[in-house]
Amino acid sequence: MKLYSYWRSSAAYRVRIGLALKGLAHTIEPVHLLAGGGEQHRAAYRELQPQGLVPVLVEEDGGVLFQSLAILEYLEERWPQPPLLPRGARDRAFVRAFALVLACEVHPLNNLRVLRYLAEDLRADEEARTRWIRHWITLGFEACEAMLARHGPEERFVCGDGPTLAEICLVPQMYNARRYGCDLSPYPRLQAADEAARALPAFLAAAPERQADAPVEAGA
Amino acid sequence: MKLYSYWRSSAAYRVRIGLALKGLAHTIEPVHLLAGGGEQHRAAYRELQPQGLVPVLVEEDGGVLFQSLAILEYLEERWPQPPLLPRGARDRAFVRAFALVLACEVHPLNNLRVLRYLAEDLRADEEARTRWIRHWITLGFEACEAMLARHGPEERFVCGDGPTLAEICLVPQMYNARRYGCDLSPYPRLQAADEAARALPAFLAAAPERQADAPVEAGA
Repeated sequence: MKLYSYWRSSAAYRVRIGLALKGLAHTIEPVHLLAGGGEQHRAAYRELQPQGLVPVLVEEDGGVLFQSLAILEYLEERWPQPPLLPRGARDRAFVRAFALVLACEVHPLNNLRVLRYLAEDLRADEEARTRWIRHWITLGFEACEAMLARHGPEERFVCGDGPTLAEICLVPQMYNARRYGCDLSPYPRLQAADEAARALPAFLAAAPERQADAPVEAGA
Repeated sequence: MKLYSYWRSSAAYRVRIGLALKGLAHTIEPVHLLAGGGEQHRAAYRELQPQGLVPVLVEEDGGVLFQSLAILEYLEERWPQPPLLPRGARDRAFVRAFALVLACEVHPLNNLRVLRYLAEDLRADEEARTRWIRHWITLGFEACEAMLARHGPEERFVCGDGPTLAEICLVPQMYNARRYGCDLSPYPRLQAADEAARALPAFLAAAPERQADAPVEAGA
């Protein structure tokens, strides 16, 4: 399989983690979102992904998959072991809800094309854009921390004794939050789950700074 | 089951459709998003849904579910018939991707709390906010129309001969687009799927203007 990826894209990071957890062999095809007006806008890439967003997963037979959560559900259905979702229906709904708080209500508000619109159309300066980014991260993290506080017994991972779709969405969002200088001290449970997940080989391999297209200064 | 809903909320509309398609008995508990500073912000509601967003589904035994796509996947797992997703893994990924383009990349950008932030923090006037709303709908609909154009044989529904999670997300987003005066003529395939779905009893029953909390002028 081939994954079209950008080292710092949260959505690509999620799929890199999913592929690594499943142990699925793949190559990475970097798509530079900033170089030359954005490689994601080239016609050949738009043929694969009509939104011009990363990631895209192309299977050996040419099958094309996109939207990170749709790809991850697909991986789960095709290669069930190790699972990315818990077994019980309620727990699965909890994990999916946790993932969706981040994937729907935080990340899409803070991605490159939205920040460009804020700057170009609404004349929001860098300070206003950073405030915007932190605002949506804060609301999302407050909700996720509250979800963990109510979920019952103290656990390091979000649900059960290993990583799920919840950590697959949390870890890239925490990376993003650190990048924009968010105060993470109000979220001890999120920090614990983030740290537990990031210590695992699959999460290490998928980390932005470990990608071939990361600049040297990102630190391998 | 009890669904906390607001007549014009796209996310609540999705779950109303899902419950109606599955034929699951439920009562509707209206949450007025605009009255008295927003009923969704009251402490008792936040106990159910820490984001203060609709919908929430509460089961007979008190189990609480939220995030519309997580609820719909849960309904699908617990009550598989009639299915909300096609059978093949690739088709399922296609339908989920279509749904996520709307549920992640369009709807969260245009909901009430974002529009308030634009008005209050970024001083965007009504014209700028309408331009913003139409911009994200246009990008999403262009992508979805392109997905349908590539998907193969001409069908009325997005995938197969009946509604799926794709129409469950499309119909509320089309409603929203009409509300904000978007030109829908560039999307003949989306219009066909929207019309085919809206003719079905489950979609009719879930429509905003049919809800008990809709104002009289919305037209029952």
